[in-house]
Amino acid sequence: MKKSLGIKTTGSLTPVWIIGSYDAQYKANIMAVAWGGFCCSKPPMVTISLRKATYTYDCIMSRKAYTVNIPSVDQLVAADYVGIYSGRNHNKFEDCSLTEVKSDLVDAPIVKEFPVVIECRLERTVELGYHTMFVGEIADVKVDDTALDADGKPDIAKIQPIVYSAGCSVYHAVGDFLGKAYDIGKKVT
Amino acid sequence: MKKSLGIKTTGSLTPVWIIGSYDAQYKANIMAVAWGGFCCSKPPMVTISLRKATYTYDCIMSRKAYTVNIPSVDQLVAADYVGIYSGRNHNKFEDCSLTEVKSDLVDAPIVKEFPVVIECRLERTVELGYHTMFVGEIADVKVDDTALDADGKPDIAKIQPIVYSAGCSVYHAVGDFLGKAYDIGKKVT
Repeated sequence: MKKSLGIKTTGSLTPVWIIGSYDAQYKANIMAVAWGGFCCSKPPMVTISLRKATYTYDCIMSRKAYTVNIPSVDQLVAADYVGIYSGRNHNKFEDCSLTEVKSDLVDAPIVKEFPVVIECRLERTVELGYHTMFVGEIADVKVDDTALDADGKPDIAKIQPIVYSAGCSVYHAVGDFLGKAYDIGKKVT
Repeated sequence: MKKSLGIKTTGSLTPVWIIGSYDAQYKANIMAVAWGGFCCSKPPMVTISLRKATYTYDCIMSRKAYTVNIPSVDQLVAADYVGIYSGRNHNKFEDCSLTEVKSDLVDAPIVKEFPVVIECRLERTVELGYHTMFVGEIADVKVDDTALDADGKPDIAKIQPIVYSAGCSVYHAVGDFLGKAYDIGKKVT
């Protein structure tokens, strides 16, 4: 028996993504976004959603670029911190003892200590309501060499990313390997 | 030391979402989408991305509605199956022994056996390239009463959702609880 919870953003997970950007004076900032994901394979694109009130909104509008930095479970305290406080009043790189590295491809900073970064050029914005979508064209994906598997692909067990539960405001680790896509489903027939 | 993996959609997780829709003749279909997530809080909205070649693309265009159905780990075989085969040649509800229930709010079918459904009205489409984004306004979120916590919120430990690792084509379960959002980050100061 299903229970109606109403018109809200609840019931699903979202990956924890930390957005890096520069303001007009090249101060680097990082912010946690609740809403984000890949949105196109060719050209490879991601989308993140931001409120106009955020510092990062102004930064991306001014630089037309951002990075998606993916923290590990042992970096959760910093990842949550950068979603609580605004870059207008805080230098969040310093507060969290994180190192900013300028991307050589897009006009945005990378978090050196996080295992994955997706570098993006702003492709367009889409006005939705409280949030604006920032569609970014991927310029590169960089992963710590210690977080790659034997085939050179990102290894989830080594990255140890965090998922966020929308509506419950809790974080979880990623658990057991369950199966291969486009493969385990063939058991149906 | 970070290694460049190139311009591709890799390195991050995405939730496993199964999209329900009707075609012009009211045949119900389900399909796994790789790209999807919440995208706005007010009004509450989701986005999914589909290729024009898919059957679901035509279905949503004709009915202006879809459902996001979230399976549990023990429903992974069906969840993967509906991403392999097309609804043009298969009745995927029947093949997977799943039950379609018509939404009373939007013109789309719900997967009865999956613990969570997000019912959506198509708000707009955004052409990106290989994929088209379908932005949906949430009409309701319904969750099995056995998957709610004591406060009536969705309980991740009971829903047991699946995450998909883009770029590696593997599924993982959700693991340990790590902390509360807007809270654990306060340890920085």
